[in-house]
Amino acid sequence: MMDTRWIDGKAFAARMRAEIAAEAADLRARHGLEPGLAVVLVGDDPASRIYVRNKVQQTTEAGMRSLEHRLPAETTEAELVALVEALNRDRAVHGILVQLPLPRHIDSARILATIAPEKDVDGFHVVNAGRLAVGLDGLVPCTPLGCLLLLKAFAPPLAGARAVVVGRSNIVGKPMAQLLLRESCTVTIAHSRTRDLPEECRRADILVAAVGQPELVRGDWLKPGAIVIDVGINRVTDAEGKARIVGDVAFKEALGVAGAITPVPGGVGPMTIACLLRNTLTAARRQAGIAG
Amino acid sequence: MMDTRWIDGKAFAARMRAEIAAEAADLRARHGLEPGLAVVLVGDDPASRIYVRNKVQQTTEAGMRSLEHRLPAETTEAELVALVEALNRDRAVHGILVQLPLPRHIDSARILATIAPEKDVDGFHVVNAGRLAVGLDGLVPCTPLGCLLLLKAFAPPLAGARAVVVGRSNIVGKPMAQLLLRESCTVTIAHSRTRDLPEECRRADILVAAVGQPELVRGDWLKPGAIVIDVGINRVTDAEGKARIVGDVAFKEALGVAGAITPVPGGVGPMTIACLLRNTLTAARRQAGIAG
Repeated sequence: MMDTRWIDGKAFAARMRAEIAAEAADLRARHGLEPGLAVVLVGDDPASRIYVRNKVQQTTEAGMRSLEHRLPAETTEAELVALVEALNRDRAVHGILVQLPLPRHIDSARILATIAPEKDVDGFHVVNAGRLAVGLDGLVPCTPLGCLLLLKAFAPPLAGARAVVVGRSNIVGKPMAQLLLRESCTVTIAHSRTRDLPEECRRADILVAAVGQPELVRGDWLKPGAIVIDVGINRVTDAEGKARIVGDVAFKEALGVAGAITPVPGGVGPMTIACLLRNTLTAARRQAGIAG
Repeated sequence: MMDTRWIDGKAFAARMRAEIAAEAADLRARHGLEPGLAVVLVGDDPASRIYVRNKVQQTTEAGMRSLEHRLPAETTEAELVALVEALNRDRAVHGILVQLPLPRHIDSARILATIAPEKDVDGFHVVNAGRLAVGLDGLVPCTPLGCLLLLKAFAPPLAGARAVVVGRSNIVGKPMAQLLLRESCTVTIAHSRTRDLPEECRRADILVAAVGQPELVRGDWLKPGAIVIDVGINRVTDAEGKARIVGDVAFKEALGVAGAITPVPGGVGPMTIACLLRNTLTAARRQAGIAG
């Protein structure tokens, strides 16, 4: 039975944030540059408020400027566009994050397209998707970037490894596949229409699960020794009626089979905000013309 | 032994061009719109001259306007940028194609980035790569689009099929993978760093070879019944010193194993220009606000 290593994303993200704080302090001392992240929250969705609070807090802790814009749920699309355009012009703002989901009367795609690509720290703009696709420097979506950093730290050399990404969302699955391809993995993208998902998974040296289905991936779907990155964050209620969070992978079944695995929570989750800070720092450096 | 079907791209492309000509005639009759394709050739590379001549001829035969710009090899980058910008503004021009390769003193990436995305009928602009990546309508590179059209016509339903793309270029491999993913194939991208290429290929219901290596893919790498699309166009010299063109797949070996295969020449090749005309028509319709 394999001794499965836990990939401690929480500790890794904390180290990343410390590095980012040191770099931000250096930018300020040597270049008088204070990276600024503008976070825009429309309405009062409770989950979104928690996310935004965490982002703001971690931005500040990293020694970067956080600029919060809380708008009422009745904000019009035109008003939100105007705000984003003002942030695009604001030289103290290097990154712009519009918290999703937006109220239904606002076209999210239009808002995301309004953000200047060089300030699009979420990496969702079509220009950043294109830059990733053709191999140019851009801003990469935070969650797949976090997964890649964990893989680079915990997996054997990526070049030539067989990677299977389960899920094909624009936010995780598709950019993840691009990143793994850039690292010269042989990449397979599987999804809901895949005929034999267990068999595809069993071929993976590296498995990234990003489908949002509680414990879809079973222990016997894993190749012994595989590195497993579990992006799922699913709320489930157990037999005794207690709520808990599980990933897309049946974690207990994976222990003893996988070579290493990210737990949920405490795996990929904390990496997302750390990568948002990393992207903000990158964006600030590029806008100021300072090499990384 | 399987009776392997030849996928006659030459005949298919001819039918496509006839359809495009009919649609172009209809656009002219009903909307007074004549789709225009500007082709820019810098210098006098013999192969490029032949490509351009073919493109111009087929554009005209399809009843569309062809606008040729031949510039001397000494043309500066600034002059070429100025020409492209003028073509971007020209309302009679719906598609712009800058023939590659450009002379070495010109930065091709800069020139391609100058083309307005809505006129980028080659589909190489980063915005079109991004649109393809995130699932928005854009202009898709001609060769992978041609491969997809052949697959839709000659392959069993694509959804759920296992597709393996060998090659990860920005011009063919990567957009091909995106297109197959959009059709809900389970997609694997293999390449020079792939550990066991024959084994990856043997799993393919649909195999697209786009690596530019003469007859790399052998008959015993194919799953019996697989649909094989051979994008390679390789000049080789045989034992008697005679030059001939072969694909990336050992064609004779594939006969009797593959369910269907594109020959080289006469397979994918003729589809590329047909798709260029299709993209020009699509671009003209969109720019004029006419539904397809």
